[in-house]
Amino acid sequence: MELSLNTATVRKQWNLAQIIDGCARHQIRGISPWRDQVAALGLSKTVSLLKQHDLTVTGLCRGGFFTAKDWRDDNLRAIEEAHELGAQCLVLVVGGLLPGSKDLILSRERVKDGIASILPEARKAGVPLAIEPLHPMQAAERACINTLEQALDICDQLGEGIGVACDVYHVWWDPKLEQQIRRAGKKRLLAYHICDWLVPTRDLISDRGMMGDGVIDLPLIRSWIEGAGYAGFQEVEIFSELDWWKRDPDEVLTTCKQRLRHC
Amino acid sequence: MELSLNTATVRKQWNLAQIIDGCARHQIRGISPWRDQVAALGLSKTVSLLKQHDLTVTGLCRGGFFTAKDWRDDNLRAIEEAHELGAQCLVLVVGGLLPGSKDLILSRERVKDGIASILPEARKAGVPLAIEPLHPMQAAERACINTLEQALDICDQLGEGIGVACDVYHVWWDPKLEQQIRRAGKKRLLAYHICDWLVPTRDLISDRGMMGDGVIDLPLIRSWIEGAGYAGFQEVEIFSELDWWKRDPDEVLTTCKQRLRHC
Repeated sequence: MELSLNTATVRKQWNLAQIIDGCARHQIRGISPWRDQVAALGLSKTVSLLKQHDLTVTGLCRGGFFTAKDWRDDNLRAIEEAHELGAQCLVLVVGGLLPGSKDLILSRERVKDGIASILPEARKAGVPLAIEPLHPMQAAERACINTLEQALDICDQLGEGIGVACDVYHVWWDPKLEQQIRRAGKKRLLAYHICDWLVPTRDLISDRGMMGDGVIDLPLIRSWIEGAGYAGFQEVEIFSELDWWKRDPDEVLTTCKQRLRHC
Repeated sequence: MELSLNTATVRKQWNLAQIIDGCARHQIRGISPWRDQVAALGLSKTVSLLKQHDLTVTGLCRGGFFTAKDWRDDNLRAIEEAHELGAQCLVLVVGGLLPGSKDLILSRERVKDGIASILPEARKAGVPLAIEPLHPMQAAERACINTLEQALDICDQLGEGIGVACDVYHVWWDPKLEQQIRRAGKKRLLAYHICDWLVPTRDLISDRGMMGDGVIDLPLIRSWIEGAGYAGFQEVEIFSELDWWKRDPDEVLTTCKQRLRHC
């Protein structure tokens, strides 16, 4: 499985042009940029730099937040951008509770309806939508879809053109992980994100670990992913306010590559 | 549903004798003590104070940690103590990953085997065992049983004398919560713990909120619990390094009672 760099991993140190250049220098052949970085560099400039370095865009981060007010227009723009970038999928972080609400069931309905509403546009643009279930500790604020099972239930209801982004950080604990990865299969597995779960974890958002520094059995989960037929990249996505965001980004990329050989 | 006080809620301010006295003064009729507090006060002294104030012991916290080395003797002692205290159940926090291991599947097997091993003793002592699924963010360090579904699967395999402690803090996010509470039913629902999920949550362990200060729809979950036939106490358990552990404990108890009238 080839390595892709989710640009959040070095976003504190480098802008997108520098990250693209870094990928080229480190022979990393995949990239998954964030929309704010693409906007800062300019969409056409980003497309041209990606083409120049022949980088595969394994995903665009991110659409979603269907519980926010302006969700529809913003998601349609995200689909257009993903299409322009030739992204393999648009990653959906679906949003948490509706503002001011404690109604998790209604919030989840809204998310499903929101995805259903943009899915025809995504199909037309040839952009697969990848629901990313986030860790249950993010249910209130970021994503009220919290397990692969729940995401796949939605996929089954909505049909073609939709699948999941499986990020080990969010799903490693799930007793049904192997079963649900098998259920997803090649058709629904649109992206595979890696990092590690640190013990202790000091922050709910930005204390992810480098592969090998935590407790996730990455070879095992990878074997399930490959067994399910996934043949894409493995994308490193590390939010690390306390550690990796403070380091020399060239060291970060070198370490990602080294660790992948051992995990 | 009557109020029970999990003694962790004021453990930083009061010792167990003071907590028992506080419950009596505030007309709180249920209590769930922790074993270290019972040990500090003395088991027979605790029994006599509880009897003197006619307090119902809704649970003893805690047995478990089956992935630790001395798990068996310690759990047998916990069963004896729960029996002496007349506790309605012994709460099991089952333990996380085996020391030094990333093998979540094996750790979970060990937990199941451990529970199976002590269950005959618990039955003999008339002490129901209550598996408490902990939030997935605790999977590595405290409990590798993380959903009601997973806990109930174990209960179904082990038979009589075992059920679950349903703590809203750990399970509120679960898309299958209503379904699994119904599945548990009166027979398996041995304890119901409440507090709230704060937004933002600043710490993975000890930043729980007072009922009403967070985003958990407590009346809804309570309706599911009551609908499933649970007729026990609702037990307030708040770990709050940053807030409630710093307050006057009489204010904490008064607030618990007030909030229960409104949530």
